[in-house]
Amino acid sequence: MPDQQFASDNYAGICPEAMAAMVAANAGHAPAYGADSWTQAAADGFRRLFETNCEVFFVFNGTAANSLALASLCQSYHSVICADSAHIETDECGAPEFFSNGSKLLTVASPDGKLTPESLRAMAEKRSDIHFPKPKAVTITQATETGRVYTPGEIGRLAETCRALGLHLHMDGARFANACAALDASPAELTWKAGVDVLCFGGTKNGMAVGEAVIFFDTALAEDFGYRCKQAGQLASKMRYLSAPWVGMLENDAWLRHARHANACARRLAGAIADVPGASLAAPVEANGVFLNLSASAQERLRARGWHFYGFIGGAARFMFAWDSDPARVDALARDIRFCALSAAA
Amino acid sequence: MPDQQFASDNYAGICPEAMAAMVAANAGHAPAYGADSWTQAAADGFRRLFETNCEVFFVFNGTAANSLALASLCQSYHSVICADSAHIETDECGAPEFFSNGSKLLTVASPDGKLTPESLRAMAEKRSDIHFPKPKAVTITQATETGRVYTPGEIGRLAETCRALGLHLHMDGARFANACAALDASPAELTWKAGVDVLCFGGTKNGMAVGEAVIFFDTALAEDFGYRCKQAGQLASKMRYLSAPWVGMLENDAWLRHARHANACARRLAGAIADVPGASLAAPVEANGVFLNLSASAQERLRARGWHFYGFIGGAARFMFAWDSDPARVDALARDIRFCALSAAA
Amino acid sequence: MPDQQFASDNYAGICPEAMAAMVAANAGHAPAYGADSWTQAAADGFRRLFETNCEVFFVFNGTAANSLALASLCQSYHSVICADSAHIETDECGAPEFFSNGSKLLTVASPDGKLTPESLRAMAEKRSDIHFPKPKAVTITQATETGRVYTPGEIGRLAETCRALGLHLHMDGARFANACAALDASPAELTWKAGVDVLCFGGTKNGMAVGEAVIFFDTALAEDFGYRCKQAGQLASKMRYLSAPWVGMLENDAWLRHARHANACARRLAGAIADVPGASLAAPVEANGVFLNLSASAQERLRARGWHFYGFIGGAARFMFAWDSDPARVDALARDIRFCALSAAA
Amino acid sequence: MPDQQFASDNYAGICPEAMAAMVAANAGHAPAYGADSWTQAAADGFRRLFETNCEVFFVFNGTAANSLALASLCQSYHSVICADSAHIETDECGAPEFFSNGSKLLTVASPDGKLTPESLRAMAEKRSDIHFPKPKAVTITQATETGRVYTPGEIGRLAETCRALGLHLHMDGARFANACAALDASPAELTWKAGVDVLCFGGTKNGMAVGEAVIFFDTALAEDFGYRCKQAGQLASKMRYLSAPWVGMLENDAWLRHARHANACARRLAGAIADVPGASLAAPVEANGVFLNLSASAQERLRARGWHFYGFIGGAARFMFAWDSDPARVDALARDIRFCALSAAA
Repeated sequence: MPDQQFASDNYAGICPEAMAAMVAANAGHAPAYGADSWTQAAADGFRRLFETNCEVFFVFNGTAANSLALASLCQSYHSVICADSAHIETDECGAPEFFSNGSKLLTVASPDGKLTPESLRAMAEKRSDIHFPKPKAVTITQATETGRVYTPGEIGRLAETCRALGLHLHMDGARFANACAALDASPAELTWKAGVDVLCFGGTKNGMAVGEAVIFFDTALAEDFGYRCKQAGQLASKMRYLSAPWVGMLENDAWLRHARHANACARRLAGAIADVPGASLAAPVEANGVFLNLSASAQERLRARGWHFYGFIGGAARFMFAWDSDPARVDALARDIRFCALSAAA
Repeated sequence: MPDQQFASDNYAGICPEAMAAMVAANAGHAPAYGADSWTQAAADGFRRLFETNCEVFFVFNGTAANSLALASLCQSYHSVICADSAHIETDECGAPEFFSNGSKLLTVASPDGKLTPESLRAMAEKRSDIHFPKPKAVTITQATETGRVYTPGEIGRLAETCRALGLHLHMDGARFANACAALDASPAELTWKAGVDVLCFGGTKNGMAVGEAVIFFDTALAEDFGYRCKQAGQLASKMRYLSAPWVGMLENDAWLRHARHANACARRLAGAIADVPGASLAAPVEANGVFLNLSASAQERLRARGWHFYGFIGGAARFMFAWDSDPARVDALARDIRFCALSAAA
Repeated sequence: MPDQQFASDNYAGICPEAMAAMVAANAGHAPAYGADSWTQAAADGFRRLFETNCEVFFVFNGTAANSLALASLCQSYHSVICADSAHIETDECGAPEFFSNGSKLLTVASPDGKLTPESLRAMAEKRSDIHFPKPKAVTITQATETGRVYTPGEIGRLAETCRALGLHLHMDGARFANACAALDASPAELTWKAGVDVLCFGGTKNGMAVGEAVIFFDTALAEDFGYRCKQAGQLASKMRYLSAPWVGMLENDAWLRHARHANACARRLAGAIADVPGASLAAPVEANGVFLNLSASAQERLRARGWHFYGFIGGAARFMFAWDSDPARVDALARDIRFCALSAAA
Repeated sequence: MPDQQFASDNYAGICPEAMAAMVAANAGHAPAYGADSWTQAAADGFRRLFETNCEVFFVFNGTAANSLALASLCQSYHSVICADSAHIETDECGAPEFFSNGSKLLTVASPDGKLTPESLRAMAEKRSDIHFPKPKAVTITQATETGRVYTPGEIGRLAETCRALGLHLHMDGARFANACAALDASPAELTWKAGVDVLCFGGTKNGMAVGEAVIFFDTALAEDFGYRCKQAGQLASKMRYLSAPWVGMLENDAWLRHARHANACARRLAGAIADVPGASLAAPVEANGVFLNLSASAQERLRARGWHFYGFIGGAARFMFAWDSDPARVDALARDIRFCALSAAA
C-alpha cells in the first residue's frame, strides 16, 4: 500500500544509520547507566559537532528533555517565557509544570511561533511583584511548530535581551536538524555562538527510535543534572541503545542529510502546488512542514482519497516530511491537492 | 575476549526475539503515541498471558514504571510500605517521592527483602495520627533484591492483610519473569489471582533494550494513567519500538525461556561451588542471582582475575545472570571462585 | 491623620468581634491542632450557617485555601478552568500549580471575571487528547476580582454544566461575605444548594487577622484533607487562634454586618460621583469595590492629594472598602474625585 | 480547674507581650504583605538580636518554616541529613518531601537527637553514586526533641564538617529560645558565629499565637525566598499580625525570660523528684522538657489523677513546660509523680 501518512514526522521509522549502530552496539555485555563506550563516543561526537566542550545527557523523549532542562533553569516560583504555540504549552500535558513543581509558562502571542526581543522584553517586564512568578528562563523552538526558523542573528539578539534581563535561554530543538539544514548554518552558530545556554537536540523526528540529547553549553547549569535525570525516570540502564544511534547519526552527517531530505520534500510539495488556486501557503516553507490554507471541503476530499494530515492552528492543513518521505508520494500528494482544491472550488 | 561481566543483568544486550520484532516493526510508517498495531498486539498479548482483561501501559524504564504506578495509588500525604532493601528505597534517587510529590517510603527491616503479613501490619499500624503520612500502598519486589521469591500463598496472605488495612498492593516485577520461572507458577497466579492490584513487568532485565509494562489488574486504578505517563515524560512518540519487542518476547514464551536460562545459570554456579570452603551462600538461590559469602581477600583475588561483580549488603559478592549468560563462562567463574577462596584461605 | 487608604480590603485591621474572641480564647491551656473546643464550635457554627453537614477546615490564608482545595479536586495531569482575571491565575505566584504538582490553569477571557455555561463548556471541550491536561475542576470567584457577583441561578447553571462535563465546582470566596450581602442570599443558596462542591470562605478581608475556612459540601472530597493541610504547612498548632475569631464573626452575623457595611461604602462612593463627568463606572457596583474610569491625569491628581488606590485592568482606578471604612472618608474621597476629574478635564 | 496539661508547650496561650503588640498593631490601616512598619521593626529587631545583617522572613508555622528553608538549600534529587528523632522526619507528615518535591531525609540513629561530626560524615559519605540522592543539607534541632542542647562548640564542629563536605547547615529552632536560655549563650553564638546558614526561630512555643521567623545568615541563600513563601501559601496579607508579636517578644528580652521560666519549671520538676525510686531521668534536663522513666503502672496512675503528658520514645513520660507554667502546679505534679511511682512499686 502506498504511503499516505504525512500527519507527523513521528510516523517515520528508524533510519538505517541508527538501526545499524543499534545492531552494532548489541554485541556482548556493556556496563549500564552510561558507563559504556558507545555513550562516551556519542557525547564526544556532540562535542566535536558543536565545536565546544559541552555537557551531554541522553534522555528518552522530548517531553522529558525540555521539561528537565527548563527545571534546571528555574525554581518552582519562577516562570518561563515561550510562544503561545510552543509545544511545551500546547502538547505536553503540563509536563514542564510537573517537572519544575509549578513553574508557570508565560505565553507570548506569536503568529509564526517566534519570539522577538521586543515581545520577550514586554512579557518579562510585565510584572515585577512577588505575587507573580518571576521570569527566569526563555525557551524558543527551532524550527517552530509552524515551520519557521530563527537565524543566528535573531537568536543572538534574543540572547542579548535575555542576558540583559537575567534570563537563561533554552532551545527546544525537536527539529534542530531541520533548522540547521534550512539555514545552512552550523550547530555551533545556531546555539552557543549565538548565546543559547542549553539545547534539546531531537533524535526521534530525525530518524531514531527514541532519544533526545540535552546539551548544556553553560556547563555550570549542568551541575547534578545526572541526578535529576535519574530521579525523573530518564536514566536508561542499557544506555548504549540510546547513545549508539546517535553515533550512527553523527557519523558522516547522516543527521543533516536526513533533515535536508525532509526539508526538500516540503519545498517540493510547495513548489508543485504554487499555482493552485485555493491552496495558498499559510506560512513560508523553511523547514520540513507545509502549512496550507485549503478550504474545509478540499481538506475533506483529500482525506477521502486516503491522505493523513493534521488540521492546524487557524484551520490550515499541515503536512510533515521525514527522513524517509518518498518524493514520488509527495508528487502524488501534490496532484491530489491540486485536484481536490479545484474540484472543491468548482 | 571472554565475558567476565556478572555484575548486573542490565549488562546483557537485546535478545534475538526482541531485536527481530523491532526490525519487523521498522517497516514503513505507523501512527504515534501507541495508536499503532504493535502496541495493540502487545497489550492484547499481556491480556492473554495474564488471562484477564487488565489495562497495560508501556513506559521507558523501571524507575518510572514503579514510581508512576505508586503515585497512582497514593496522594503526596500518604506513605508506601516496602522492605528496607527495596530498589525504590535504595537505588532510585528519590524517584517515588518525586513522582508522588512527597509520599514517604516506610521501610521494614527484612533480611531477605520480603515482607510478611506481620511486619506489614506492624508498620501500617505504627502511627495513625495526622502528623505522619497515612499508609496507602504496599510494594513487594518479585524476585527480591536478594534473589528471593514470594510464593502465590505468601502473596495471597499479604494481599489479604492489605485489604484488611485499606492498602493497595503493588508488585515491582523488574525480575518478574525470573520469579515465574523459579516458581513454575503462571503470571496470573503470581499477581491478580493472589490479590496484586498493579504489576510493573520488567522487560529490560529480561532481554529488551528498554521498556517496562505497567499492568493494572484493578482497572479502576488505571483511570487517566495515560495522562500521567504523558505528563511525566513516559509516553513514547514512536511507541511501536517499545511495544513490538514485547510482542517478540511474549511469542512462544521467549520471556519465560530467557528467565529459565538465567535462573539455571545461577543454580549452575551455586551447584558447582557448593563444596567450596569459604564460599557459602548468603541466601538460597531462587532466581537469577547468587549471593556468596566470600572473604574480602577472596573477592579481591577474583577481581584481579578480571571478574566483575558487586559487593552487596553485608559484604556478600553478588553474581547476576541474564538471558545470554554463557554456561561455559559460569563454569569458568566457578573454577576461579574455588581457586580464589582456597588460596585466600591458605 | 485621616485615613486615605482604599487600595485594598487587606489594609483593614481586626474587627472587634474577632479580636474579642481571640482574647477570650486566650484563657489557659488548650489542646493543639484543632482538638480544642473553639475549633469545634467554629466548625459547628459553619454547619449551622450553611444549614448542612459540611466538612470544615481552617487554614492560614487564601492562597493556601484555594490551592489546597483545588489540589484535592485534581491530579497533576488535570486542569482547572477559571476566568483570566481570577486571583489564582494572576496573583498567587503559581501556588495552584505548586500545590497540585503541575495542574494547569485554563483561562477563559471574561471582562467581568465571570464564567458562563457557554464559555466554560467551550474551554472544557477544546481538547480531549492525551497531550493536554484533562479538565477536572472549575473555579469561580464570588465576588469576582472586578466586583461582580454570581446569582444563585447563575451558579446553578454553571454547576449543571460542570456535572454534565464531569467537573468539580470550586468557589473562591475571598469576598464571599460581600456576595451574600450584595445578593441578600443565604450562604446555602449561594453554594451547595446551587451545586458548589467546595467553598473557600475568606476571613481575612472580612475582618480577621488571618485565616480562611475550606468548606466541603461534597464531603467525600474531604477525605484525608487534614493530612493534606498538615503536609502543606497549613495545620496550626495553636488552632484556637484561627478558629475562635470565626466564632466571633459568626455570632450575631457579624460577618454579614461587616460585609454589608463595606458594600454600602462602595455604593455610597458610586452614588456620590454618579454625575461627575470623566468618572464613569468601569463596572456596576455589586460588592465592596468601585472601579472607576478616570483619566490618567485625574488619577495622578488624586494620588497627589494623598489617596491610595490601585490602577487596575484596563486602566480603571480601584477603590476597595472594608468593615471599618469611614463613611466620612468615603465622602471626602468622593469630593476629591469630583475635584480632580473636573480639574483634569479643564 | 487547676491546670494539669503538660503534654505540649503548644497548649499554652499567647503571652502578654505578644498580645499587647498585636493589639497595638490593630490601630488603623496598614499596607499588606509585609510593607508595614511593624514588619520592618521586627526584622530590624532580629538583626539587632543576632548582631548581623541577616535576611528575615515571617511564616505561619514550623512545618512551613523548616520545609521552606530546607527546600531553599536543596533540589528534589538531593537529600537532607537529620537525626532519626527529628521532628521533620517523625511529625511533619512528609512536609519536607512535599515542599522540596522529593528530597529524601537521611536519618542518623541518635539516642539524644543530636548529630555528631562523625555520624554526620558517615551518613554523608555512605553513598556517592547517582542512584542515591546526593546529600546537600544538614538539619539540627536546637533544643532536640528529647530536650538536649548543642553547645556553640558542638555546632561549630558540625558546621566545619558540613563545609568540608559541601553541605549547608540548617537549624530547626522550634525551641531555640529554650536553648539560648539553657546555655546562657547569645543567639549569634549559637548560630552564624558557629557556622549555621539558616535558622527557623520558633515563636509559637515561645508564647505567640502563630508564626516563626526564617533567618538567613548566608544571605545569598535567601535569593527569591519571598517568592517561595508566597507560592507556598506562607505570605500573610495582614502581615503585621505575624510580625508585631515578634516586636513585643524581642523588646526587653521577653522571649528569653519566657524560655528561662519554662526551663526553670523543668529543672524544678526534676529536682523535686530526684530521689524518687522508679522515676529516673531518661535524659538530662537541659531545656523545657523532662523525660522520665516511669513504669507503665505509674504512668497510668498519674493519668488517672488527671495529668496530661505524652508517652515518648522508649516509653518515657514527657512533660513539657511553657512560658506560663505555674510553679505550684509543677510542685503538685511532682508530688503526684512521687506518690504514683511509690504506690506502683508497692
